[in-house]
Amino acid sequence: MITISVILEFIGTFAAAISGIRLASNKHFDWFGAYVVGVATAIGGGTLRDIQLDLTPFWMTSPIYLIASGLAFLWVLFFRNTLNRWAQTFFLFDAIGLALFTVVGIDKSLAAGYPYWVAIAMGCVTGAAGGVVRDILINEIPLIFRKDFYAMSSICGGIIYWQLSTHGLVGAPYLQIITGSSVFLIRLLGAHYQFRLPTMREMEEEQPERDT
Amino acid sequence: MITISVILEFIGTFAAAISGIRLASNKHFDWFGAYVVGVATAIGGGTLRDIQLDLTPFWMTSPIYLIASGLAFLWVLFFRNTLNRWAQTFFLFDAIGLALFTVVGIDKSLAAGYPYWVAIAMGCVTGAAGGVVRDILINEIPLIFRKDFYAMSSICGGIIYWQLSTHGLVGAPYLQIITGSSVFLIRLLGAHYQFRLPTMREMEEEQPERDT
Amino acid sequence: MITISVILEFIGTFAAAISGIRLASNKHFDWFGAYVVGVATAIGGGTLRDIQLDLTPFWMTSPIYLIASGLAFLWVLFFRNTLNRWAQTFFLFDAIGLALFTVVGIDKSLAAGYPYWVAIAMGCVTGAAGGVVRDILINEIPLIFRKDFYAMSSICGGIIYWQLSTHGLVGAPYLQIITGSSVFLIRLLGAHYQFRLPTMREMEEEQPERDT
Repeated sequence: MITISVILEFIGTFAAAISGIRLASNKHFDWFGAYVVGVATAIGGGTLRDIQLDLTPFWMTSPIYLIASGLAFLWVLFFRNTLNRWAQTFFLFDAIGLALFTVVGIDKSLAAGYPYWVAIAMGCVTGAAGGVVRDILINEIPLIFRKDFYAMSSICGGIIYWQLSTHGLVGAPYLQIITGSSVFLIRLLGAHYQFRLPTMREMEEEQPERDT
Repeated sequence: MITISVILEFIGTFAAAISGIRLASNKHFDWFGAYVVGVATAIGGGTLRDIQLDLTPFWMTSPIYLIASGLAFLWVLFFRNTLNRWAQTFFLFDAIGLALFTVVGIDKSLAAGYPYWVAIAMGCVTGAAGGVVRDILINEIPLIFRKDFYAMSSICGGIIYWQLSTHGLVGAPYLQIITGSSVFLIRLLGAHYQFRLPTMREMEEEQPERDT
Repeated sequence: MITISVILEFIGTFAAAISGIRLASNKHFDWFGAYVVGVATAIGGGTLRDIQLDLTPFWMTSPIYLIASGLAFLWVLFFRNTLNRWAQTFFLFDAIGLALFTVVGIDKSLAAGYPYWVAIAMGCVTGAAGGVVRDILINEIPLIFRKDFYAMSSICGGIIYWQLSTHGLVGAPYLQIITGSSVFLIRLLGAHYQFRLPTMREMEEEQPERDT
């Protein structure tokens, strides 16, 4: 049975893979490299979560994630010139992915018996760590560490989940729907109004203990 | 009992470590750093596989991998000037490693109960991911993503294994021997005739959704 | 009960996080990015150890590590200008962390049934790999691979532990105290007298097999 959750997951995987394949393309990766970076962006976060929760990495349980990444690869390959026209759509798809992956990460962590603070962290890992893996593979400083309200949207959603749940305000599936919608909305508002966390300031002098 | 498989594994580990230690040397790593990069190149792929299959990382089951890497270190240290003369030999050793690691990765995944598509991916991870770990540690874009038919040789071998096995054409150990030989040959032919996957093309315009 | 070990662990975590947050600050990471790099520096090594030993990642068992990293973040944020004045203190804290993490890594590995050579490697991973994760996240060549006697202090301590233990010279807790003190002292002496491992020399000619 194809549920809404499966459709949303496919959309989110597709969008994450698109972002990885595009950035790899700009660095002149070959077809294999671009596809692998797309896959790593799509599954990196969830895999880091599952390894730490001692679960089977989710991408090994169904070929759908590699297939969605393959479709993303074909899209970039054949419709490269249309990508900027679709930018707004892919942005929405990506925000859907961030929202869904956050909820999945939280649910899986709580189901494994961990407390809320671990679940919130894992929701953020699930939603945002794929982008970090992507940027490491293309040898760039991870973007989510320098700008944007990307990972913070996930964390805000996690806090909302925690508060709603511990106060018994709502149960499943409303808990998940409200959390996911919150992440999605915060991401959209953050992009539109350019939410930014402050940037750290450089240290003034040289740091002799750099090597510690 | 020292089997052919053990000898081939030693050769492959040695060659992988040589490649890591050489590249680390060119970046002026110290002895410790060069050795660690050699080890990481040699064991990185298999460790990523075992962690995802929830098995004990293979390098922790026998000191032979750290020893083979240590011999590779000594070789680079003392016979540095002969390395180019031996380049052809190390290339063959490395291709042997790629072939063997691919077969081991496939076999271990199937033994753990995973389907063929996971096994083919894991064969490729086992054979090629060590080079990715190496390039991340020396802060370079992973080479296998940009040129050469390295990882693709492993995937071609995996497809051959899958086809032979599902059609019941051959069983062990011929299945493994044919697969390994195929990877080895494709790698050699690919290097000789310079097989290349096409390179992705850069996007024309700026990408406003870079940060998604 | 707050034991000395818990206090030392807090100090070591704090110092590791400080180093990550400082370096991230110099690369203009935002608050979230700086905090995450701090956390990754503090917990990266132990997490790599626990995943390979198939144990629950230690940072998921108590919020103290994220809290210590949070305090480190606040320190850098508010007392940035005092950081150089405190450099010596943070260096000592970091050396305490290296010593403690080495001992914890060795003990956990032996308790999991692994031989001494695995335990020594895991002691070093626990103590030093966080710095490697940090440098990968800020897109720099890992510092411990290029200078200083940082990881080697951990390995020397591991060898001391092994010799004392196999010859039955001392038992717990003296074994742990002597090992930790040795790591601490070697690190201090190494920094003061500038112990350095030799640097690998670059290869003379081009390397045609770079891509193997």
